[in-house]
Parts: sequence; structure tokens; C-alpha cells
Amino acid sequence: MKVTLLSYTPEPDRVVATAARLCYSPRAADELWEELTVEKQKEFLAKLWNYGHYSPFEHASFTFALTGVSRALSHQLVRHRIASYAQRSQRYINETDFPVVVPPTVQRDPRAEAEFTNVIRQIREGYKRLVALGIPKEDARYLLPNACATQLIMTMNARSLFNFFALRCCRRAQWEIRELAWEIRRQVLMVAPLIFAQTGPACLVKGECPEGPMTCGEPYTWSEVAENAGR
Amino acid sequence: MKVTLLSYTPEPDRVVATAARLCYSPRAADELWEELTVEKQKEFLAKLWNYGHYSPFEHASFTFALTGVSRALSHQLVRHRIASYAQRSQRYINETDFPVVVPPTVQRDPRAEAEFTNVIRQIREGYKRLVALGIPKEDARYLLPNACATQLIMTMNARSLFNFFALRCCRRAQWEIRELAWEIRRQVLMVAPLIFAQTGPACLVKGECPEGPMTCGEPYTWSEVAENAGR
Amino acid sequence: MKVTLLSYTPEPDRVVATAARLCYSPRAADELWEELTVEKQKEFLAKLWNYGHYSPFEHASFTFALTGVSRALSHQLVRHRIASYAQRSQRYINETDFPVVVPPTVQRDPRAEAEFTNVIRQIREGYKRLVALGIPKEDARYLLPNACATQLIMTMNARSLFNFFALRCCRRAQWEIRELAWEIRRQVLMVAPLIFAQTGPACLVKGECPEGPMTCGEPYTWSEVAENAGR
Amino acid sequence: MKVTLLSYTPEPDRVVATAARLCYSPRAADELWEELTVEKQKEFLAKLWNYGHYSPFEHASFTFALTGVSRALSHQLVRHRIASYAQRSQRYINETDFPVVVPPTVQRDPRAEAEFTNVIRQIREGYKRLVALGIPKEDARYLLPNACATQLIMTMNARSLFNFFALRCCRRAQWEIRELAWEIRRQVLMVAPLIFAQTGPACLVKGECPEGPMTCGEPYTWSEVAENAGR
Repeated sequence: MKVTLLSYTPEPDRVVATAARLCYSPRAADELWEELTVEKQKEFLAKLWNYGHYSPFEHASFTFALTGVSRALSHQLVRHRIASYAQRSQRYINETDFPVVVPPTVQRDPRAEAEFTNVIRQIREGYKRLVALGIPKEDARYLLPNACATQLIMTMNARSLFNFFALRCCRRAQWEIRELAWEIRRQVLMVAPLIFAQTGPACLVKGECPEGPMTCGEPYTWSEVAENAGR
Repeated sequence: MKVTLLSYTPEPDRVVATAARLCYSPRAADELWEELTVEKQKEFLAKLWNYGHYSPFEHASFTFALTGVSRALSHQLVRHRIASYAQRSQRYINETDFPVVVPPTVQRDPRAEAEFTNVIRQIREGYKRLVALGIPKEDARYLLPNACATQLIMTMNARSLFNFFALRCCRRAQWEIRELAWEIRRQVLMVAPLIFAQTGPACLVKGECPEGPMTCGEPYTWSEVAENAGR
Repeated sequence: MKVTLLSYTPEPDRVVATAARLCYSPRAADELWEELTVEKQKEFLAKLWNYGHYSPFEHASFTFALTGVSRALSHQLVRHRIASYAQRSQRYINETDFPVVVPPTVQRDPRAEAEFTNVIRQIREGYKRLVALGIPKEDARYLLPNACATQLIMTMNARSLFNFFALRCCRRAQWEIRELAWEIRRQVLMVAPLIFAQTGPACLVKGECPEGPMTCGEPYTWSEVAENAGR
Repeated sequence: MKVTLLSYTPEPDRVVATAARLCYSPRAADELWEELTVEKQKEFLAKLWNYGHYSPFEHASFTFALTGVSRALSHQLVRHRIASYAQRSQRYINETDFPVVVPPTVQRDPRAEAEFTNVIRQIREGYKRLVALGIPKEDARYLLPNACATQLIMTMNARSLFNFFALRCCRRAQWEIRELAWEIRRQVLMVAPLIFAQTGPACLVKGECPEGPMTCGEPYTWSEVAENAGR
């Protein structure tokens, strides 16, 4: 998995703090923009978070290139609807010798890995033979597995990322999208430290698991997250 | 593929016509509701359509159960974001002996079909062996193919369905989602004939293909659509 | 304020329960639909709520006619973006003798009410004179006050209503939209008792106020809500 | 009216072109990003537009501060739901001596202007007296007119801006939001000339008016737009 932050709203902390201030201040927007020192940004963003007023966080957006993720992951990912996606098409691109994502549980077990590799090989050959028989790529791809690697460009605003982290940094999320969520969190924290300071899985943010009886029973702690970014 | 219209806004034509009337009439909403004869509904909905005012169409929603569609289809389908989905989980449901969707191009060619069936068999066995080895279902499923059948419940409002039909009834859409789009159109036409009277692929609705140089060159005609519902 | 539930997804509790079941059951959607007794609906919806899985609630939609609400309210209301609206147009409808919404704090104070009534009268006359001078209605309306009554048709799905109640049933919401939120809650509870059983302002639902230091300090209690529907 | 482009996705043309390329290219996202010369960006964006593939345009966002616009405008503006807003609150900010937006039709007619000014003065005094009587600001504001100036921060992605321009640059849109739409178009054209080259009111973009019988009968022309940015 390779995650690249391609582009994002410049000065995201300032943009969000200005939007937040504007609602309650008689001052003009440009003045607010100018006078927001980092100290004041910090103060206002902490307040926003404490008051549970999330809409100003929508004004900062982040665009990522995601490479080497599986179609299992992408099918989960695009269920997040307040976001934009461009995805590599299996209808138009020839997928002979497609790369795969191998789950760690499979990697750790030599018998499982041999089995996995063998089936992937059969699929690759089957795909190739179907294409050779004149089957359109868009139909030959019905054989392609969830493991097949794909590539996406994704844009989400900060508020939508909060929700993404709450659900997908969770230990009950599948390992692959969880890894993605923590990696994205690591990268946005570097460029918008004030916005994302308090974000993460719901257990970390709210102090308790919202999944009720389906809880994993091992809530994340801030010190654990600080040490290894949760992975 | 099995498509069942589970539920929908009752009297969808009347709901939409009332919403449309309300914007321009000094009358009270309940009176408008009462006085809208089918004749008047017809008149107002035709006007709405001609004026290009689509927002009133959002007030009628339609909920479908979709069975026997592929994961290739569902991955395309959930890209339509102004809609709600519930989908059968491959993480929690055991997919041993999963049913498959076989593309017509494969069905029509005995050699291709033999190849396809053979690879599917290998995948089924691989999946079973991984599960037997203790690999979690959510990881064993990385072998499962796009052909694997899934099941969804989907709700879309009429305006979002217009866009769905414009893009997916198109001959350039993949055959499976095109078949779904036409079948959904057939079913909503039966319960909301006024709302959907003029809907379909963009070529039919606008009178010209919006895909520019990528056009299929065979625009649908109203008579063709009337005869065979476009399939 | 008059609130009329014009239309809604029939059997909303069953629709949502079916969508929820489908994700984790190998059974076909129509069978799930058929076998969901009220008892089982109750069980599954309570589980959904406890697990914090809200997306199935999107499959039930509710359409209301709102009459006699102010433009102050409607400007707040349409900020809820996961919803559909049709609103009486001040550009096309003559607003001579427009009805007004008078805040209770004004009604309770004779001097304030006299002042209020007097200014409204001046506005009505000014509007009339502008129109008589040939000023287009859409420009004369720049004089119309927030108190001016409007009319809307609004459709929201259950999940979006949860958010609407969490924010707008709150004692810190303005009295008019709070009154609307509680009235809508009362009406949807009658037709979808299982879906809405546990909904309300955030303090009631979560057991604590999310507004932090801006809390009103008087969280709602279930017994209070049961007695007077929170008003 | 003052419109300030506060922030936007850097290199918006490149971001969109990369997203578009990714769908159909076997190359890695970062390579695509690097190799996209301005020439190639131009070529791909023109293709996108011709093919009617608009989703890649969602990856570029633009954040504006809007000052000195009326509440009539802001009520129309926030109906655009695929966007984010922060707005000056009339509940929390004292609006004594609120500034107003005066429609040009009123400005041009001395009698109308005198009438308008007079009513605004009455409203200001009424508001002040209500506040002096102890009426909360949030209730006193029921007297405030649509003309009352407000301030917003708004973020829209390019695709949503296309729709905004199509509807609001139209001669049938109200003069104030039309002025805003053309001004925003002017500013985004300067920073993302390739993305917005072909945007504008529907008549300009599609070559014909979509409003059917409600057409103004004077479609914009490209030369007119080039000369005066449509105003």
C-alpha cells in the first residue's frame, strides 16, 4: 500500500478557524483571516471540537493517491459517500499479470500462502485465456479476485475524514482499510496538526466504544497511538 | 438477477406534483395536495420536466432488493452516492459454494465457459481450504471473484434515478448494470408513470449523446424502448 | 405552525429491519422481508441502535408539509443538506399582507408586541408601495422580515432525522425550530415507533450534552419527554 | 458585495487531470502527476468535458469569503447542498445598525429608494427598541429584512460550481446571486483556467436554454461573456 498526499487546501488550520470565527464575530472575513495567529487558531479549533460544532471542518479538503490497495478495500472505501473518487478501470485496462494484495494471516501461514498463490495463478491464466478467446476485458474481469490491486485518487474534507477515522481506525474494521485509515491520519496530522489533533477511532475520541455488545474490548489509548500511530 | 420493488413513497406522482406546485402557489400545501387530480399532476409534471426543474422529484423514493447481481456490478452501483445501500457482507457470511454471475459473452462461447467454470471451481476450493486452515472469512474472501453474486437493498429518490438511468441505460454501460437499470426503470414506470415517462439513457432523453467522441453511434429511439423496454 | 405528514415509506420499521438483516444473513431479501415479525423487527432495530450502525435507517423517508413557519426558521432548516425541500417563492408570489410568526417573548410583552406589530405594518405598507411603484416582487421582498411566514415541503430519511432531532430538539436551538423538531418527532413516532423509539436531543440519546462548556445545564430526561413530548 | 478567494486546492488543473487519467491508464498515480505538462492537462480536461465525465472535477475545491450580500441571497445560496457554509449568526451577533443591500431597481427610482430607506430605518429602530425591552437578539431579529447584509465562507468543488454557474449565471436568476455567480466564475477562471474554460450559464454551455417555455429568450454568447464577464 502506498499513500501519497497529492494536494490539500493550503493553511487548513487557518481556513477552518476563520470559518468558525465568522459565525460569532461582527468582524469582516478578511480581517479574521489576517489576525488568526497560530495561538488563536489553536484556541478556536479546540473550542469547536469541545462544542461539537463540526461543520467548519468541512472547509479543508485533502486529496490522496492510493496505490497497491485491493478491490476488497476499494469496495468498502467508496461506501463513504461524502468524498470524491477516481478509480483505475478494470473495464478498460488490461489486467494480465495483475498485482495482488495478500492478507497478513495468509502470509504468515506457508500452507495458506501456497494455496493463495496457486489460486491467483489459476485466475491469471484463466483471465489471459478468456482475453485470448476474444472475451472483452470487461467480462474476463469477472474472474478477477478481491485481492487484485487497484489505484484510486480520493478527496475528503476534514469532517468526512473524522468519520472515516472513527469507523475505520477501529480494531473491528478490516486490517487493510484500518491500515489505510491510520496512514492517512498520520499524513494529515503533519499538515493540519490542529484540525486532526483529537481524531481517531471512536473509542479514542469519545472515550468509549460505540459498538456496544460488538466491542473488541481493547479500546485504543492516547499513549498507544502516540507511540506507534495505532498500528 | 432478481429485482424486487420492496417499498416506495405512496402516490409518488402526487407528492412530486404537490412539491412543484407549492413553490409558485399562494395556496396551502394540504389544499394543493387534495386538489391535484391525475390530469393536473400530469400537466405539472410535464411542465417541471420541460423547465428542467428537477428538485421536486427528490420527494419520491424507491427501495429495491437486488439479488443475483455480481460484485462487479455492486462496486459500480455504490458509486452512485445520492442513494442508500445495505449489502451482504463477505466478512461475516461464509461464501463456500458462492453463486456466480456469468457474462453472456462467456456463456455463448463453450470454450470460454469451460475455462470460466474451471477457474470458479478452483477459487471455490481455494476459499474452502483457506477457511479450513483457519484463515478468517474476511481474508479468505480475497480470492473471491468479481463474478461472485451479492445481494443489496438500495433506496434512490426519483431525481437520482434519472441520473442513474441517463448513465446506466446507455449502451456503453456494462451489460449487467445496464440490465439492472432498464429493469428498475420498467418497475418504477408501473408505479409512478408520470414521474418516469420521459426518463432513460441520455441519448433518448436529450435527443443526443453526451459522450461526444466516445458515442456508441446507435442512439436509443422511443419506439425501440416502447417495444422491448430497451433491452 | 402546522405540520402535516404527507407521505412516507410504508412499513418503515420493516424496511429498515430488512436492510439491517440482509448484511449478515445468507437468506434472500424477500424471505427476510416476509419473516420479519414485529417482535423480530423490534429486536433487530434495538441491536442496530446499540451497535451504532445507522446506515440501514436511511431506507425510510418521511415527507412533511410545513405551514406558518418563519423565514428565520426556513433559513436554518435548509442548512440540513441530507434532505429535500420545496419552498414557497417570494420572487413569484405576491406577499402583500404576508402573515407573520411572532416570537413568544414578544407576545408575552405588550410593549414589545405593539412595537413588533407596528414595524410589521410599516413593512407591509412599504412592500405594497414599492410594488405599486413598479418594483419587481423579487426586489420589493428585500423589505420582508424574517418573521414572514413561509411554506415548505420537506423530505428526510430517518437517519437524517436522527441528526435533526439531536441538534434541533436541544434547548439551545431556537424556540421555533425546536418546536418543529419535537412536533416532527411526535408524528414519526406514531408511524415508525421502533425506528424512532430512542431518538431525541443529544443529551437524551447519549446521556450527556455534547455542547461542552456551552451546555444549557438542563439535560432532557426520558420521563419528561414521555409526559409532554419535550415541549 | 465583496468576494475573496481565501484558499483553494493548489494546482487544481493538474489534480483534476491526474484523477481523470488514472481511470484509464496503467501507470502509477505519482508518475501521472509528474508527467502532466500544461499541454497534456489541457488536452485531458478538454476531453473530459467533451465526454461529459464530470466526477474528476470534484477533486478541486475553492473557498470564498462573501461579504455584503443579503440574507435573500444567502437563503438561495445555501440551497446548493453539495457545498459547505459558515454564516454570520443573527442569533448571537447584535444587528443594531445592520448594513443593507439595496436592489438596483430601487436605487434607480428616487421615490422607491426613499420608501425603502424609510422602512429600513423603522426596522432598525424597532429592532433596537425590542433589544432595549429585553427581547433576546434571536427574537428581535424576526424584524430584520431580507436586505440585511450577511457574511459567509463557502467551499464548493469545481463540479458543484459548474452546476452553480449553470443555474445562477442565468439571466432568470435573481440579479444579486447572478452577480455573485459571475464574480466567482471570474475569480476561479484566473486560478484554474483549464477547468473552468467552458463553464457558465446553461445557455452558453449547452448552446440552448434548458428552461423551455420559461426562457428569457436572450441566450448568452461567448463573445459577450469574453467582453464583460457576462455582467
